[in-house]
Amino acid sequence: MRIAQVAPLAESVPPRLYGGTERVVSWLTEELVRQGHQVTLFASGDSTTSAQLVRSVPEGLRLGGIRDHTASLLVMLDEVRRQAADFDIIHFHVDLLQFPMFRKASDRCLTTLHGRLDLSDFHPVYRTFRTMPLVSISASQRVPLPAANWLATVQHGLPFGPPPAETQDRSYLAFLGRIAPEKRPDRAIEIAKRAGIPLKIAAKVDPADQEYFQHVIQPQLDHPLIEFIGEIGDHEKRDLLGNALALLFPIDWPEPFGLVMIEAMREGTPTIGWRSGAVPEVIDEGVTGYIVESIDAAVAALTKAFFLDRKAVRQRFEERFTASRMAQDYITAYERVLDAPTATMPRERSVIPPRPLPIAMPGALADDWPQFSGVSQVQI
Amino acid sequence: MRIAQVAPLAESVPPRLYGGTERVVSWLTEELVRQGHQVTLFASGDSTTSAQLVRSVPEGLRLGGIRDHTASLLVMLDEVRRQAADFDIIHFHVDLLQFPMFRKASDRCLTTLHGRLDLSDFHPVYRTFRTMPLVSISASQRVPLPAANWLATVQHGLPFGPPPAETQDRSYLAFLGRIAPEKRPDRAIEIAKRAGIPLKIAAKVDPADQEYFQHVIQPQLDHPLIEFIGEIGDHEKRDLLGNALALLFPIDWPEPFGLVMIEAMREGTPTIGWRSGAVPEVIDEGVTGYIVESIDAAVAALTKAFFLDRKAVRQRFEERFTASRMAQDYITAYERVLDAPTATMPRERSVIPPRPLPIAMPGALADDWPQFSGVSQVQI
Repeated sequence: MRIAQVAPLAESVPPRLYGGTERVVSWLTEELVRQGHQVTLFASGDSTTSAQLVRSVPEGLRLGGIRDHTASLLVMLDEVRRQAADFDIIHFHVDLLQFPMFRKASDRCLTTLHGRLDLSDFHPVYRTFRTMPLVSISASQRVPLPAANWLATVQHGLPFGPPPAETQDRSYLAFLGRIAPEKRPDRAIEIAKRAGIPLKIAAKVDPADQEYFQHVIQPQLDHPLIEFIGEIGDHEKRDLLGNALALLFPIDWPEPFGLVMIEAMREGTPTIGWRSGAVPEVIDEGVTGYIVESIDAAVAALTKAFFLDRKAVRQRFEERFTASRMAQDYITAYERVLDAPTATMPRERSVIPPRPLPIAMPGALADDWPQFSGVSQVQI
Repeated sequence: MRIAQVAPLAESVPPRLYGGTERVVSWLTEELVRQGHQVTLFASGDSTTSAQLVRSVPEGLRLGGIRDHTASLLVMLDEVRRQAADFDIIHFHVDLLQFPMFRKASDRCLTTLHGRLDLSDFHPVYRTFRTMPLVSISASQRVPLPAANWLATVQHGLPFGPPPAETQDRSYLAFLGRIAPEKRPDRAIEIAKRAGIPLKIAAKVDPADQEYFQHVIQPQLDHPLIEFIGEIGDHEKRDLLGNALALLFPIDWPEPFGLVMIEAMREGTPTIGWRSGAVPEVIDEGVTGYIVESIDAAVAALTKAFFLDRKAVRQRFEERFTASRMAQDYITAYERVLDAPTATMPRERSVIPPRPLPIAMPGALADDWPQFSGVSQVQI
């Protein structure tokens, strides 16, 4: 299959440091190539891939200091459109800017929504461009928007990677991701202090969260049990997760997936997660971790987590959350898009009901403008 | 002429409180209607206009609590496209999201750029969508982007309004707009204190500037000469400006126009402005104000400002900055777009050079997708 993957431009693919979506796009792309597909990746110029790379900007925009990504994304989407005829399927990971440009190509496009959908800011666009097939990354992500044009849920997956090390010290807890109020690092610190177990915090601090970090979190870091490491790369991450007793995921928002839970799982490390967003869909209670709703319950779960079979944690990862499974799910989704009869994919009505086209044209080429009566179509 | 005006959705048209672009769109729209044109205004549902209003969202997004405007703008632009056949010209005031959707309609579109252009974030889009005619609101605004597809510079204009009151007390200075580092309210406060003249500050504080307000400006407000009024409406604004000795405009950024300077001018009130951005293009030195580069020069200019002929200030407003003049300039720009031979408006090349169309089609309807060889055009 000739597949275009259209990545966000915030980070390179894969990202040098933080960057969940670009990481997933990388894993998916590499796995699709491995499975023999012909993949073109639209991404920042500092990306590395075994697919064909179309460099849309010189480097990832966040580290390049570009704050408003709209212009760069529009330029990339224009290049995707220019090359559109070369692809059987175009897979977007960039939210919504592509909807107007690719509406009439909805019979060979799909969009994975990677973010939260509970903010009403974005809802109008899903109503207006309702022919664009959407993929959710969890069932809970869909809840605020049940009537959108959902095609499938595809949970994220990771490369197998080496088997977890046998000599794990399990002497500490891990918190990994962003320092932000909704990630509740304060809860993680509280749990560690109550349990008397060291906590390693590896996290980036966005400019928007700088004040929260300085005023709420930093004062709590000056404690013998708490260690703040900052933003780390992939290799350090595996060490950090693999040697941890458990990952703490004490979130307080509708997390659409929670990639770090399966990154821990891959290293055989269970997660103590709050019952919110996709957490109950990812953790198998009593196998790969525990789902809690209070600090007390989290502290109690730590003892149980110590006795979980870490081989079984890894085993469950291999069954549910590999990149190979994710890629296979996406191939199934691509086939559904391509096979879908028009009836199951509602189409926008033209202002004037369309007359038959004189020559068969791929859907992607259909005129995306309202039709004028009398001049819009040629009768043979 | 059948004209579409496409407004931003941050504020109603006109805005209830702050909102420069929506205010200009309102003045332009009303003046075009007054001159006998058939105008359709795409704007928020709480807008008021004598044009035909297409309500794109229920209310202005800022006061409605919507932070990300992208989805709402895309939905509005889709509606513009749906109605595109009804207009001779489509005039956008929404920066860049319309570029991909209306590229092939560039022979009857134009876009006024209302913001600063010195941020490189946006430059890629002007290169890629280089057929879209652009209007600048000052010459200085263009400087960072000289090679864009500039059609004209049209300075803003205001409705005549009633003649300035004769009984102006001129006992204070005015600062009006946003509290933000680049607007330098601190300079205004310093000038007032040095000159010993009261200063009235009427300004909104955006969430992004809350910290600057609290830490830098608020401590300076506790002084007998300084009065902070907050955000005010149009009527209060005229009073505030009309009774002021001078408007202080001590900006420290490339202000693309500086609407408040001509709002003061309309009331016969001169401006003391910093030499930056469009200030030297708006102020006629020694007639409608003074252009300075230091606090000392600003304090010295206040004495001269007291002796300026306020009738001459108003007179200069009537000559240069009325809505009627602005509307006439735009009509001239619209005619230039419609009359332009293709040669002066560079067009994107198709992948396959286009063959003659079998039936004359307006440019706006041309297929916006790359052409496949052999199926793209019908030969008669």
